[in-house]
Amino acid sequence: MLEEITRSVVEELQKQHLLIQDSPLKRDVPVSVSGRHIHLQKEHVQALFGYGYKLTKLKEISQPGQFACNEKVTIQGPEGTIENVRVLGPERTRTQVEISRSDGRRIGISPPVRNSGNILGSSPVTIIGPKGTIRLQEGCIIADRHIHMTPQDALDFGVMDKQKVSVLVDGEKGGVMGQVTIRVKENYALDMHIDTDDANAFGIRENQQLKLLIE
Amino acid sequence: MLEEITRSVVEELQKQHLLIQDSPLKRDVPVSVSGRHIHLQKEHVQALFGYGYKLTKLKEISQPGQFACNEKVTIQGPEGTIENVRVLGPERTRTQVEISRSDGRRIGISPPVRNSGNILGSSPVTIIGPKGTIRLQEGCIIADRHIHMTPQDALDFGVMDKQKVSVLVDGEKGGVMGQVTIRVKENYALDMHIDTDDANAFGIRENQQLKLLIE
Repeated sequence: MLEEITRSVVEELQKQHLLIQDSPLKRDVPVSVSGRHIHLQKEHVQALFGYGYKLTKLKEISQPGQFACNEKVTIQGPEGTIENVRVLGPERTRTQVEISRSDGRRIGISPPVRNSGNILGSSPVTIIGPKGTIRLQEGCIIADRHIHMTPQDALDFGVMDKQKVSVLVDGEKGGVMGQVTIRVKENYALDMHIDTDDANAFGIRENQQLKLLIE
Repeated sequence: MLEEITRSVVEELQKQHLLIQDSPLKRDVPVSVSGRHIHLQKEHVQALFGYGYKLTKLKEISQPGQFACNEKVTIQGPEGTIENVRVLGPERTRTQVEISRSDGRRIGISPPVRNSGNILGSSPVTIIGPKGTIRLQEGCIIADRHIHMTPQDALDFGVMDKQKVSVLVDGEKGGVMGQVTIRVKENYALDMHIDTDDANAFGIRENQQLKLLIE
């Protein structure tokens, strides 16, 4: 009888994605807030900034090899524009604009929530640089909540690449962020990335540690 | 042994505020998104709109007796202003400005998360109307997530006035909103109120039903 109750409690929780990780596994995850930004393919760098132009590094960001550029662009939708959108380097194979849902409302588009790189059928958007303008038929997304980690981290946390997990947030506007994608790669640094809407809604503080929950 | 495990699982979940409500109780809650707005005391209506001025009703809102007014004001902080902030009527005993954390960032203030009416020591803010300006020493808050309900609803959900609960949100940016305050009054209509940051972060849809979880 008690065994049955235990099992049904655990199953219900697993169904609800709320089962807390056993203590031997690692649970603490640092979090970073990603402001709106854009990744550019080479041809678009030149279209926006001029023939032969190379992006210039402002500073390193949390993932090795990635950097914030000095360059900024304006993005435009049917109902508005947002200036000073930071370009992130290095160049990618496909241009991708990452904004929050509130940014989307501001310029009149409703981008899908996607993994970085998965832009098929995503929102159209116009990008305006100092030397030219690009009209993308697709390429604007709301980045999904995700956690970068190494294969060793994945072992320590007991998770796999592409797995969906939840993350517990404390504080006066705390709660649980669901639908968080695990991304495992040898050269990743352990870091959870959320957008500014999530940061504001959950009242995320500088250097806050969150707790991984397994779905 | 199994009894111990069951108890410890349940206790851990209660501690984590994640225990799911038993099925016989009601769980579905409708949700409304509150945009930034302001409640005004009588003297401030006159200071902003002119001597003897009366607020005029635009339309009823979800709680009986409350209404959106035609009147709008501008709010100002040290780093910016936001225009067209809707006044809600009727007049209250103390003026109170309710904004989101992202609004706060925009105008350079960091209001506390509070129950409506609890403004002691909250953020200073300037309010600009067509006929005058008020500098409040306190009065700007981020409204806590809360659920209005009648005493009968409280029985149906198995909750009490002022109790903190959590609410499960499905969808691609779903999760659990924590720290949700129950507010019980005879003339309340069942409705959960969240701010625009929560709505954007959780991807709340029009007429979405959320699920109550007991803390």
